[in-house]
Amino acid sequence: MERIPILRMGRLLLVTIQVDMHDRLALALQDDLTARIVKDGARGVLIDISSLDIVDSFIGRMLDTIASMSRMLGAETVVVGMRPAVAITMVELGLSLKGVRTALDVEKGMEILRNRP
Amino acid sequence: MERIPILRMGRLLLVTIQVDMHDRLALALQDDLTARIVKDGARGVLIDISSLDIVDSFIGRMLDTIASMSRMLGAETVVVGMRPAVAITMVELGLSLKGVRTALDVEKGMEILRNRP
Repeated sequence: MERIPILRMGRLLLVTIQVDMHDRLALALQDDLTARIVKDGARGVLIDISSLDIVDSFIGRMLDTIASMSRMLGAETVVVGMRPAVAITMVELGLSLKGVRTALDVEKGMEILRNRP
Repeated sequence: MERIPILRMGRLLLVTIQVDMHDRLALALQDDLTARIVKDGARGVLIDISSLDIVDSFIGRMLDTIASMSRMLGAETVVVGMRPAVAITMVELGLSLKGVRTALDVEKGMEILRNRP
């Protein structure tokens, strides 16, 4: 159980982050996700962080990196399920996830990705 | 991070099991899932086990219990993403998940649930 599963739903990929991220796991996720975007021809990536109590600068940076990589491969990333407390802490820490789109939940995230031009 | 997230997609709920299940977590999942089925009026539950290397009798029983509970609340359960090695081991252990439907991946599971009468 060292890898985070990537689920395919039509032309979208869904990643649910449930475990503490560490360097190796984050790198593995980047590798797996970029490979899957290409293999599946994905147009969008949804990253669900509703299990996370804390998003620190490491995870913030990882989300940003994943979004940039995905964009280069033609897929847009939407981070969904952020808890209110997490949003508060992140802004207080000066992390604003500028490069990443967000949505309240998976359904709203899917809508954003389906309606993109 | 003591709870497994439940994601809503239309009238389906998606649960991705990534961590080692223990008693307390399994009970919490049953509670959360039954509550969400009622609250969201869900018609189906997808449980993704593609991250699991091993499905022992504890997890097998849990999947069975969840399927029975969901059925009583009007939702069908489909277990998706089982690895070939897991299927082999389960049959060898005499665990056949008789009460639970299975599908290869989330997409196929969604199809089954959408086409149910």
